[in-house]
Order: sequence, then C-alpha cells, then structure tokens
Amino acid sequence: MKKVSIKDVAREAGVSVTAVSHILNDNKQRFSQGTIKKVLDAKEKLGYIPNKNAQQLRGSKTKMIGVLLPSLTNPFFSTIIQSMDEHKPDNVEIIFLTTINKGLEENIKHLVEHGVDGLVIGRLIDEPENLNAYLTKHKIPYVVLDQSEDNGFTDIIRTNEHEGGKSAAKHLIDYGHTNLAIIQPYELMANMKNRIDGFEQYCGVHNIPNPKKINTELSKLGGKNAVNQLISQEVTGIFAINDEIAIGAIRALIDNNFAVPDDISIIGYDDIDFAQYMNPALTTIAQPIDEIGKVALHQILKKVEGLSSKTEKIELPTQLIVRETTQSLK
Amino acid sequence: MKKVSIKDVAREAGVSVTAVSHILNDNKQRFSQGTIKKVLDAKEKLGYIPNKNAQQLRGSKTKMIGVLLPSLTNPFFSTIIQSMDEHKPDNVEIIFLTTINKGLEENIKHLVEHGVDGLVIGRLIDEPENLNAYLTKHKIPYVVLDQSEDNGFTDIIRTNEHEGGKSAAKHLIDYGHTNLAIIQPYELMANMKNRIDGFEQYCGVHNIPNPKKINTELSKLGGKNAVNQLISQEVTGIFAINDEIAIGAIRALIDNNFAVPDDISIIGYDDIDFAQYMNPALTTIAQPIDEIGKVALHQILKKVEGLSSKTEKIELPTQLIVRETTQSLK
Repeated sequence: MKKVSIKDVAREAGVSVTAVSHILNDNKQRFSQGTIKKVLDAKEKLGYIPNKNAQQLRGSKTKMIGVLLPSLTNPFFSTIIQSMDEHKPDNVEIIFLTTINKGLEENIKHLVEHGVDGLVIGRLIDEPENLNAYLTKHKIPYVVLDQSEDNGFTDIIRTNEHEGGKSAAKHLIDYGHTNLAIIQPYELMANMKNRIDGFEQYCGVHNIPNPKKINTELSKLGGKNAVNQLISQEVTGIFAINDEIAIGAIRALIDNNFAVPDDISIIGYDDIDFAQYMNPALTTIAQPIDEIGKVALHQILKKVEGLSSKTEKIELPTQLIVRETTQSLK
Repeated sequence: MKKVSIKDVAREAGVSVTAVSHILNDNKQRFSQGTIKKVLDAKEKLGYIPNKNAQQLRGSKTKMIGVLLPSLTNPFFSTIIQSMDEHKPDNVEIIFLTTINKGLEENIKHLVEHGVDGLVIGRLIDEPENLNAYLTKHKIPYVVLDQSEDNGFTDIIRTNEHEGGKSAAKHLIDYGHTNLAIIQPYELMANMKNRIDGFEQYCGVHNIPNPKKINTELSKLGGKNAVNQLISQEVTGIFAINDEIAIGAIRALIDNNFAVPDDISIIGYDDIDFAQYMNPALTTIAQPIDEIGKVALHQILKKVEGLSSKTEKIELPTQLIVRETTQSLK
C-alpha cells in the first residue's frame, strides 16, 4: 500500500510541491486564499500526513525519544519504560522506540534515521568513542544507564552498584553464611562488575573465603541451570546477580529437595515486581527502578530541549529488602 | 568466477525469482513444502548467498510497525513484542513503537504522523468504525489481536478463548470442585468475556452452581486484594482471568494461612514465563504467546507489502497445563 506523498497533494491541488510545503507549514503569506484552500482540500481528500521528520527540522515541538534496552521480558526493563511513560510531561509528547535483538549500532542508526530527538541507552556500548562521534555529528543528545561504562561523554544515571553488592554480602555474612556463591551471566554488563566487586571486597575485608562463581545465561532458565553446579558444593548462601536468576535458581533448588531458606539462603538484585509475590518472597537489593526511568527521562528531555549542556553523573541509592529467602544460620 | 545469483537458484529449483526471494526471506507461508524444499535444496547445491545490499536495492525499504498494547509490565505483552522481534524477516527491518498510557486514538494518530507503515493493535478499540475510517483514509494497514472485538474490518489473530475457559472449568470440576469463583478485572476485554462465557457455560451444562465473581484490578496487586472477598466464602476452586492475578491471589492466600492447593485450587490463564517458576508452579491455560507475536507480525507485513488484501481470521489453540496449584478434592 503506497502512502500519499506531498507530490500527490500537489498534483491534486494543481500547484507546486514547494507551494504545498509552504502552505502546510504555516508559511502562507505569499499564497492566495484560493490556493491555500485548494491545498488544504487536497490534503483532506487524500488523507495526506506531513512528514514529521522534516517538520522536526523546522522546530516542531513533538519529541521522540528512543530507548535501547537489552530485553523486555525482564520486568526490570519493562518497568523502566513504563515509568518513563508515566512520568512524561504533558507538554512533550514521547514515543518509546524499543528494539531488542540487533546490534546496538544498527539500532541507533535506525532510530536516528527515523527522526529520533534523543536516546536513552541501557545497553553495553562496545565502541563508545565511535558512537559518541556519530551521535554528535547528527546532533542527537543521549544519556546512558549504568549497563554501560561511564566514558564521560554524556550523562550517566547509575545506582550505587558497589554499595549494593556490599549490602548483599553483609546481609549473608551477618546471617552467619561463610560458604558463598555468586550466580552471574557469561557476559557481565559494566554495572554487574561493580556489583560483584562490592560483594567480593566485603568478603575479603571480613576474611570470608572467595565466593564460588557460577556462570550461566542471564535469565530465569539460566538461574535454574546453574543450580546443578552448586548443590554438590556445600554452599549455604547465594548471591544471584539479578532477581530473574534468583527465581530460576530457587525453583531448581526446590525441585532438588533443598529448602529455601532452611537449607540455602539466596538474595537477588533489582526488586522486580514479581519479587514480593514469590513463595518464599525474595530477599533482594532493590534498585529504584521507577526512579531510574523518571530521572533518565528528565535528563534526556533537558538535553533535547537545549536546557543543559553540562555532563551530569547521577547516582541513585540501592536498598536491602529482607524478605523470606534468607535466614540466619545460627 | 561469476557469483551464483538468485536467478540461478530459481532456474535450478524450477520456480520464479519472486518465490525464491520470499522463501529465502522466511516469508514461506504461501508456498508448499515441496516448493520450499526445492528452493532450499537448490540454494544448498549452488552455494547461493543472498546479497544484503541487493535486497535493499530491490526496494525492501525499512518498514516501521507500531504495536499498541495495554501494558508492558505484564510478561504476556512483553513476550509478544519479543517474539515479533525474534521472528522478523531479515529483509524487513522493524522498529517496535509501544505507547502505553494515552488514549488509543491519540496513540495511533501519533504513530501515523511518525510515518508508521502498519499497526498491530492489542487493545480494546472503543470506536472501531471511526478508527477503521481513519486508518483506511491514511492507507495504514492494521491487524488486531483478540483484546478487541472482531468487527470484520481487518485481520484478527485470536486464540480459542471459549474453549480455554471451558478447559479451565472442566479441569476444576474433574478434580471435584463445585464451589467455584472467578477473579476478573473491573473492565473486561473482549477476549476475557469469551473466556468467562466458556467457563460458565461448562459449569451450567454440568449443573455446577454459578461461580462467584470477584472484580479487581488487572494486576498482581489486584489478585492479592481480591482474596479478602473470597476467604469467607468456602470456595475451593478459583479461576483467575490471567496468571498475574493468579500469582497475586496465591501470595495473599499463603499470607492468610491457606495452603495452595491443599485448601484451595487455583488455575490461571496465559502461561507467562514466570508461571512455571512459581512455588507451587502455576496450573494454567497456555496461550501460544510466541506464536501470537509471530503470526501478528506475518499478517501485518503481508498487508504492508501489499501481498494480501483479504481479511483473515486466525484462531490459535489454547492448552491446559497442569502443574501444582490444582489438586483433586477426592
């Protein structure tokens, strides 16, 4: 199905494409009322929609923000998007573009070609210098979430991951656990590295043996599959790199006749919406997911509207939420 | 040495170049297994490698598909989007636009103004005649999922909701439950009405008293809040309109010292990715979520590419998945 173009409107109205363009962009001064009416009638009759990308160049107020995230099926990321939608100001319209599987660069090029006004990038950026050069060239502001490294090019919204990892270690160790394991993904995002550093550093300072590390897929199934490598190891305390992995691991522990938390304590990370509904309810390090979405939106809009040219680093707090999957050994 | 071309593959397979192009671009649905095999065999035999640039030159320009869904935080919907992304053909690039909170009409107007090529609508459409007139006028093809009524204007992808509801009733009644309740949202989407009709009709035919109906928010919290109205009622079997409500209800039942399934059996609907990880694991009516995304994508691309002008109704099957939240009373 071919879309109606500005040429079709011009033909229908019997005027030039330039005339149609001027009239539809409210630049009517040099045209007669008759010409203006012919163009508007032709537009109405054919159902012509002006091309927003072109309009944006001329300063239309609608803003289009592209959001790049690794996955939508992890509620952590879908909640960030939901939060951005709920907190958007009324005077700025936003469309969320979410692409999932392709390479980051291809995604971004795609979004830029579609006239995006700004980007929120919540994925690992492989070549930050190249990306920054490309976006700077195309005058597209962007902010990054802490799934990527801080390269100093633009705003970063992060949580205190090191402190979060430390809190997880402190909680397990306070509960008397010394035989610890970390379930982590094959590929660590930048923020996860800090999370694990914080955990391990706290163990080191308190003379707790290095935690065993189990590598797996970053998913519920990954958590489930990781348990086979754990159950022969006399581990009593597990730090799962996120709630999804924790949920998968708990299911596998139950299937293998381990009681959580009676036999094994486990703590997750994120506090996704499902965490409090699990049975037992999941102890976790809460990230302020809603706040991350809200702040990311606020920062990118400031840049898109030209209200800020400085580079800000915003750090949000994490919080230990003790529920039912951890228990004192003593 | 001359490179093998698509013409060589067509000649070898004895089919048209267009057929080879469609089949190699995973747009196989309208070809017989025999034709598909001939083409794949010819490709293999000649060592043909599709030329990406050539594909782009032939006019397979970027397509932008808008997807309208009620919520992203329900994994049912985020999985549909993920599935569409995973199944998109290589020669057609797609960006998913997902807007959440605003009115449907505003969302759609917004997407159309941003140059969307086609729409997948998974929300209740209040004024289907108006919407159809608007989209027809602007030459934007669309398909609807069964969250909306079938108005005959365009393709609808639905599951057999009546049968799904019936299967849920049959399962509970086969297990000896006669004191039943349905937890449902304040506002029923079209497909949920059919689901409930199927459930109630099966109860009626088998002389089971009308199920009690508890109205609540369509969310995990809604399911949790609904339980207060249930626990004084001697209900032994609950049909939750979806898995999220079931998960919230189970959490509240446990908090109120009811054992699931020993005291109360509960069955959900959807089979979201979390269902099998719950403890107890959730018995549910599975919708083919992945298939819904795949088929919706296929249908809208057919329309966007002008390959189909007829209106199709596609019905996918549901399936009872018995896990641990239901138990025989006998």
